[in-house]
Amino acid sequence: MATQLEQARKGVITPQMQQVASDEGRTPEEICQGVAAGHLVIPYNVHRSFRAVGIGAGLRTKVNANIGASGLRNLVEEEITKLEKSVQYGADSVMDLSTGAELDAIRAELISRSPVMLGTVPIYQVASEAAEGLVDAEKLFTCIERQAEQGVDFMTVHCGVTRRTVEALAGQPRLAGIVSRGGSLLANVIRRTGQENPLYEQFDRLCDIFLKHDVTFSLGDGLRPGATADATDAAQLTELLVLGELAERARQRGCQVMVEGPGHVPLDQVEANVLLQKRLCGGAPFYVLGPIVTDVTPGYDHISAAIGGAVAAAAGADFLCYVTPAEHLRLPTVDDVVEGVVATRLAAHAGDLVKRVPGAREWDDSMSRARRNLDWEAMYALAMDPWKARRLKEGSEAAGEDVCTMCGKLCAVRTDRLSLEETAKK
Amino acid sequence: MATQLEQARKGVITPQMQQVASDEGRTPEEICQGVAAGHLVIPYNVHRSFRAVGIGAGLRTKVNANIGASGLRNLVEEEITKLEKSVQYGADSVMDLSTGAELDAIRAELISRSPVMLGTVPIYQVASEAAEGLVDAEKLFTCIERQAEQGVDFMTVHCGVTRRTVEALAGQPRLAGIVSRGGSLLANVIRRTGQENPLYEQFDRLCDIFLKHDVTFSLGDGLRPGATADATDAAQLTELLVLGELAERARQRGCQVMVEGPGHVPLDQVEANVLLQKRLCGGAPFYVLGPIVTDVTPGYDHISAAIGGAVAAAAGADFLCYVTPAEHLRLPTVDDVVEGVVATRLAAHAGDLVKRVPGAREWDDSMSRARRNLDWEAMYALAMDPWKARRLKEGSEAAGEDVCTMCGKLCAVRTDRLSLEETAKK
Repeated sequence: MATQLEQARKGVITPQMQQVASDEGRTPEEICQGVAAGHLVIPYNVHRSFRAVGIGAGLRTKVNANIGASGLRNLVEEEITKLEKSVQYGADSVMDLSTGAELDAIRAELISRSPVMLGTVPIYQVASEAAEGLVDAEKLFTCIERQAEQGVDFMTVHCGVTRRTVEALAGQPRLAGIVSRGGSLLANVIRRTGQENPLYEQFDRLCDIFLKHDVTFSLGDGLRPGATADATDAAQLTELLVLGELAERARQRGCQVMVEGPGHVPLDQVEANVLLQKRLCGGAPFYVLGPIVTDVTPGYDHISAAIGGAVAAAAGADFLCYVTPAEHLRLPTVDDVVEGVVATRLAAHAGDLVKRVPGAREWDDSMSRARRNLDWEAMYALAMDPWKARRLKEGSEAAGEDVCTMCGKLCAVRTDRLSLEETAKK
Repeated sequence: MATQLEQARKGVITPQMQQVASDEGRTPEEICQGVAAGHLVIPYNVHRSFRAVGIGAGLRTKVNANIGASGLRNLVEEEITKLEKSVQYGADSVMDLSTGAELDAIRAELISRSPVMLGTVPIYQVASEAAEGLVDAEKLFTCIERQAEQGVDFMTVHCGVTRRTVEALAGQPRLAGIVSRGGSLLANVIRRTGQENPLYEQFDRLCDIFLKHDVTFSLGDGLRPGATADATDAAQLTELLVLGELAERARQRGCQVMVEGPGHVPLDQVEANVLLQKRLCGGAPFYVLGPIVTDVTPGYDHISAAIGGAVAAAAGADFLCYVTPAEHLRLPTVDDVVEGVVATRLAAHAGDLVKRVPGAREWDDSMSRARRNLDWEAMYALAMDPWKARRLKEGSEAAGEDVCTMCGKLCAVRTDRLSLEETAKK
């Protein structure tokens, strides 16, 4: 079966492109051209069936929720709840980042239940099952192939952690070193064996697998900065240059590609990071983790990431990986997942208002009209999280009233409406 | 007694300027010059005694927490708890925005207990006590004088809501009209009586009072946008032009002045709003409410405000008024207050990293070193909210361990450290 990209190049409009066009207020031809150019991807494994979502230039900024058990907290039921809550609160995608035991079974369960695209980071499984810390190349490819057959729609592969980029890292010392799990595992192989990263050296083999199942590349940033002090450094950019080359190679092979970005980035460097990724990676969709804009707020990094994510989205980032209040502290709980999804959707939408994505302005304006009319039911219906909005107002002393407990009878909206009505009478 | 500004103009370095210099890593002369130029203010009523804090160019971005009872929820004990929590979590200032009954007593109580500067919006009291909706000019000045004598350090006065600006509002229809309580009350007086805003018409009388007690002006933006669609419109800018004139008049009289800003503002207009305020108001400190960057997230507007606030601070805003999860829905609870203070401090600090405020970079770097060392006690101590950081980690299955439940044994920091240690041995 041909990939979305191969079909787009032939001018074939797939059902998935139709779906994306319809959901985004674009024409099928626009979507097809965007996919053909590599500016859009539609992650959609050939073995799966769900409502297709597009990621890339001109489309609504998408949001991913990371779920998955860990060796220290392995409760499959809880991860299924996280999947359901992520979808309920509007995530466009989930990644199963489980580590620990029985990973194939957990993944099969999550894939079968997921109504949205699902991504993974296959090296986690190989590392979880490796007795020593050294990842074996053959096991890694076998694992990737098995996951592709299972129906994974996109995979993070840290192909850019190479002998050359690890050298760049050594040449310009960092405060926080490597903070990507995949990056640290592959750098360890390179340092300890002197061998090249198999995901880089055998990149064509990877393309073969991805092509066969139409798995979308998510070229991982294994050397992303883990401290605001390390942002936009030589190692990060050396890796980004490699990712740009590989993105082009993958597209030439017919594979869909997006590229991942940092990380911990001060606010005034976020826009430059988007510019660099778009420029160096041929306009490939940019998938950012955060970025978080300060290092000192564990417990609130979903807010830090919303700041960086909003600025990134406004500057052209296409896909935001959520960050939850648990970041840097623990595996997220179900509540953390909800908080992370909504915070990230908020950031994405703030960016969409700037990017003039169809429907974004209209959504805000509908809410403003509902506010002006003190129409609470309309406000709840339009709220990004209708359940919380209702809970806060209706749980207060002003339940059922047209004003709220913040201002009471001094409500400015009420005063202004009455004032205009009185004035009009004269 | 002379105001801080009057003394600065004579080159007198007050104890308050000394304090600010010492806390900000600046020289007393720099602070004195900044105050003299009107680029810094030190709100400090002559009747009070507390640790002085400066607001303005080159200083750490400050954070205000709004507290105060309302007619629909009037529990003084709860407001005292909010004051204490605001200070515990690092607010630089509180505003008592109480409406309803017994306002003098509540204010006296809060002033006596506040270790930080305290602001008010006097028109709320007059409106709360007015039988009809029409605010009486004499009662308003009497109230302002009484609050100044009580020890209020800064007051929001909506002097820019004038016949001319209300006319501008009528000329360019808005989605959300007027959303400032003070703004709506004064516009109502103008519309219904045809008389000019007394705070504008008798501005010198206001200066007399503020001068006598060194109350800092916070020139309110009564016509701030309450919908992202209304941002940066003719009414807002007409008012800002008036505020710029009044700021200059107040400074000439020897009064300290800051100017308030919006509101609901799309992300790509935030920087322009800071530029305009600084340009039109002679570099007066800019006190922003939010700005929130989308209208559709009631329940999460503290995050929306953190996005806008961070971008504003990075662009030069000096003072961020917090927004809590309760915004648009209810009077905040104590928990809402804590969430709002930390979210706003996070935004301020993200801006300070960009503004190169002394100490900001060092704080982040200390945290990054603690992370690299997996030194959890140091991480908690450096966290903006140490209590939550500890609670999340130590409440998880990884309590007491060097890694957390997110990655377990696949912790990238651990892998990277071990890898470098192993490599160094060879």
